[in-house]
Amino acid sequence: MASIFPKTTIFKRFSSTFTSKPIPSKTHLHKPIPDVAFPQGYVLTGIHAGVKKVPGVQDLGIILSTSIHPTSAAACFTRNAFKAAPVLVSQQVLDENGGRARAIVVNSGCANAVTGKQGMEDAWAMAKATDTLLEQESRHKKTSETLVMSTGVIGQNLPITKILSGIESQSLNNTEARTLGSTFEAWERAAKAFLTTDTFPKLRARTFSIRGKEYRLAGMDKGAGMIHPNMGPPSGQLHATLLGCILTDAAVSPTSLQTALTYAVERSFNSISVDGDMSTNDTIVALANGAASVSDSSGWLQEIDEQVDPEGYEVFRNELTSFAIDLAQLVVRDGEGATKFVTVSVEGAPSYEDAHKVASRISTSALVKTALFGEDANWGRILAATGSIPLSQPIDPTKVSVSFVPTDGSTPLPLLVNGEPEKVDEARASEIIAAEDLEIRVELGLGSEAAKYWTCDFSYEYVRINGDYRT
Amino acid sequence: MASIFPKTTIFKRFSSTFTSKPIPSKTHLHKPIPDVAFPQGYVLTGIHAGVKKVPGVQDLGIILSTSIHPTSAAACFTRNAFKAAPVLVSQQVLDENGGRARAIVVNSGCANAVTGKQGMEDAWAMAKATDTLLEQESRHKKTSETLVMSTGVIGQNLPITKILSGIESQSLNNTEARTLGSTFEAWERAAKAFLTTDTFPKLRARTFSIRGKEYRLAGMDKGAGMIHPNMGPPSGQLHATLLGCILTDAAVSPTSLQTALTYAVERSFNSISVDGDMSTNDTIVALANGAASVSDSSGWLQEIDEQVDPEGYEVFRNELTSFAIDLAQLVVRDGEGATKFVTVSVEGAPSYEDAHKVASRISTSALVKTALFGEDANWGRILAATGSIPLSQPIDPTKVSVSFVPTDGSTPLPLLVNGEPEKVDEARASEIIAAEDLEIRVELGLGSEAAKYWTCDFSYEYVRINGDYRT
Repeated sequence: MASIFPKTTIFKRFSSTFTSKPIPSKTHLHKPIPDVAFPQGYVLTGIHAGVKKVPGVQDLGIILSTSIHPTSAAACFTRNAFKAAPVLVSQQVLDENGGRARAIVVNSGCANAVTGKQGMEDAWAMAKATDTLLEQESRHKKTSETLVMSTGVIGQNLPITKILSGIESQSLNNTEARTLGSTFEAWERAAKAFLTTDTFPKLRARTFSIRGKEYRLAGMDKGAGMIHPNMGPPSGQLHATLLGCILTDAAVSPTSLQTALTYAVERSFNSISVDGDMSTNDTIVALANGAASVSDSSGWLQEIDEQVDPEGYEVFRNELTSFAIDLAQLVVRDGEGATKFVTVSVEGAPSYEDAHKVASRISTSALVKTALFGEDANWGRILAATGSIPLSQPIDPTKVSVSFVPTDGSTPLPLLVNGEPEKVDEARASEIIAAEDLEIRVELGLGSEAAKYWTCDFSYEYVRINGDYRT
Repeated sequence: MASIFPKTTIFKRFSSTFTSKPIPSKTHLHKPIPDVAFPQGYVLTGIHAGVKKVPGVQDLGIILSTSIHPTSAAACFTRNAFKAAPVLVSQQVLDENGGRARAIVVNSGCANAVTGKQGMEDAWAMAKATDTLLEQESRHKKTSETLVMSTGVIGQNLPITKILSGIESQSLNNTEARTLGSTFEAWERAAKAFLTTDTFPKLRARTFSIRGKEYRLAGMDKGAGMIHPNMGPPSGQLHATLLGCILTDAAVSPTSLQTALTYAVERSFNSISVDGDMSTNDTIVALANGAASVSDSSGWLQEIDEQVDPEGYEVFRNELTSFAIDLAQLVVRDGEGATKFVTVSVEGAPSYEDAHKVASRISTSALVKTALFGEDANWGRILAATGSIPLSQPIDPTKVSVSFVPTDGSTPLPLLVNGEPEKVDEARASEIIAAEDLEIRVELGLGSEAAKYWTCDFSYEYVRINGDYRT
C-alpha cells in the first residue's frame, strides 16, 4: 500500500503492520497576506542558523520593533516548575523594563530547557546579540529589550556559536546576508523559524478600529506536540511547547496589554490540547509599538488603557482574544498526527473553572481521542472522562446530557439526555464523527457557566512521531 | 511482513502503513496452581452466557462462599460520578448487610454503565438470581448477599435474559450444566469470565500464617484499558474498568477487612495506569469466610480484628497489600498494546500525596509513554511531566535528580543531578530502555516521602484496539 510517509520514518526493526487512513494535509491553511495588512514599525526575518540538521530550513527568527514610540510588551509563560532558560530570561527582561521590550529572538530545534547554568548563559547571549541589532536600528544604547524563545528537544544545549553568528548576520553593515524586512515574505520567514513538527507556518493578520482609527494585528505561533498549555502572567504561580507572538501597531499601556493578554490566553491557548503534556517553554508574547497611533496636540502618545478609556480597551481586548483563538485553533488543526478538529463545549457548570476542568479532561482522554481516530461514536468514554474529576459541587448523573453537534449546521444528535441513554442512530453518529470537524457538547445541569476546549484525535502517526522524536 | 494480529483487525479503509515491533506474549504469566493452595469454602465457575459474540468464551463468573461461618465482605469502588449500576447495587448490598456478603457475580462484554433505570433493574436481577444459588447452598433464606460486577462497553444494556439463564444453569438440581467447583480449573474458569481485552487470565494464590495458623489467599483481576483507578471505600467521596476480587479462608471482622482493603488498594490498584482514563465500574472486592479459622473453646469464631489483635491484623494487612500489588502489576503487564513494564519511583517528596501525584503524572504522560514505546531515552519529557503539576510546596529545579534504574541489578544511569543534566551515555540509556522492564526514579529533594506507580508504554496496538473497540 502507498505510504504518505517517507520510507525513512518507518521503524525497520519492528515487525507488525498497521494500516491507517492518511493524515489530511493542512498546508492550505497557510495563505498569503497583503503587505499592507501587517502592523507598521516591525522588521522580521527567519534564517537557517544550523540548529536543525536539514540545510536551508529556518531555525532562527528575529523580530524588531522600529517604532519611534516606546514598545509595550506583555507575556504569558509556562507554569511548569522546570521553566526553560529563555523563559526565565524573558521574565527578567520584562520585569526590569517595566513591561517594555522591542525585540523577539526565537530558535527552533532545541528548547534550551533543563540545561542548567550553561542554558542561562546561552539564552542571555541570544538576548544581548539581538540587543546589538536593536541599537543599530535605534542608534542609542538601551538596557536589554529582547525577549527569547526556544523550542525543540529538552535537555540538550544550544549550538550557541551558530545561533550568535546567525543573529550577527542580520546587522546593518552586513548588507548581503541581511534579510530583515516587513514584506509578507519577511513575516513568512519569521513564522517558519518557529516550527518544529508543524506542517505549515501559522501566520495570521487582521485590522481593527477604535473610534474610526484603524490598527493592525498580526501573529504567528507553532505547536505541534507537548501541547496542553497552562500559562500565566510573569507573576503567575508555578505549573504548561507552544510559542507565539502577537504584534500590533496600536499603542497600549504595558499594564493594560498584560491584562488583555492574560484574559485572551486563558480563553485561547490555555484551552487547547494535543496530547495533554505541558511544556517547559510555552510562551506567548504581545508587542504594541504605537506606530499607527496618533499623538494628541501636545505630542503626547495616547495609549489604549483600561483606566483611561474602558470602551476602547474592551474593543482591543476582545479583538486580541478572538485573534488568539484563531492562532490557538491552528495549533490544534496541525496537532501531531491529527485527523480531527474537535470542539468540546461544556455547559451548565457551576463555575467557568469547573466547565474548563471537564472540557480539559474530555479533551485529554486517550480513550476519547483514539475513538475519534477510529471514528467510533463511543460516547460512553466521554461520560467516563466527565465523571472522573471532582468539581466544586458533585455531578448529578440524572442531570447530564451529551450530544454530537455536526459543524455543517445539521441537527445535533442527542446521545444521553438527563442521564438516560438515547436510542442512538449509530449510522447518523458515524456520519457525524466521520467529518474532520466535530463538536462534543456536554450539559452538566448544575449551573449556567460554560467553557470551550479544542482538541484533536490520537493516531498511529502521533505514536510514530513521538516514539522517535529525537532520531 | 508477518503480522502478529489477525488480518480482520486491520483497518481496511485506511491507507498508510506503520510497522511496529511485536507486542510480547504475556501468556506465560498464567500458571497452574495446585488445588490445595486455594482458600477453603468457595465454589466458583465461569461460563459462556452469550454477552460476548465469540461462542464458548467465558463472559459470566460466579463465586459462592459455602463456609458455615458468616462471610465478611469489603470493597473499594470507582469514584467516577457516573457509577455503573452494578457498583451502586453492590454498595447498597454491603451497606444493608453491615459488611457481610457471600457471593460475587460478574459479567464481561458489557459494563451496564450509563444505562439508566433499566441498568439498575438488570443489576438487581443478577444479584437476586445469584442469591437463589446461595439459598440452595446454605438451605436458608437470606437478604441479598451478592455483589455484582460488570465490565465492557459503556452505555449499552445487558442481554439480561441470557445472563439470568446462565446463572440458573448453575443451580443444584441442574446436575448436567452445573460447573461450580473448587479445583484449579474452576478458579481458572472464573478468572476467565472477568476478561475483556486481557490476553491471559489473572489468577494468583498464596498462603500466609498468623501465630502458626495457616490461611490461604487467592485473587483474580482484569484490565486492560480504561485503567487509571481511583477507588475508595463505599463511604468514599465521588470520583476510576478494573475488576478484581481477593478471597481468603481467614476470618476477619468486616470493619478490619475494609480498613485493610482500603490501605492495600491505595498502594496497589490506585497506583497503576495503562491509559490514564478512569472507569465507571472499577471494583475490588475482598471476601473472608473463616473456613480455615478455629473457634475458641466457647465455640466463638476468633476474627482477625485491628482492635482485638493489632499484630495479627498488621500481618494480614501487609499480606493483603503485597498480594494486591502482585495482582495490580499483572494488569499493567497486560495493558492494552503494552510492550514495556515501567516502575515510576518518586522519592524525596514533602508528602506521600505529592509523591503519588508526580508518579501518576509521569505514568500518564503520552509523550513519556510513546518515547518508551520508541525506546527513545527522551528523559526531558519526564522532567516536563514532573514540573507540570502544583505540589504542596513548589519544586526547586536545582534539587531534582532523575535516573534510569535497570531491573537486571546493574548500575543505575543518572540523567539529571540536582537540576544539572549529566553527560548521558546514550548507548547505555538505549540499552536500559530496550529492556521490557525498567524503573524511572525521580528524586525531588523536598522531603522524605516516596511513592511508586506502575505503568506501560503507548503503542500503535493501543491505538488500534481503542480506535475500533466496539466493532
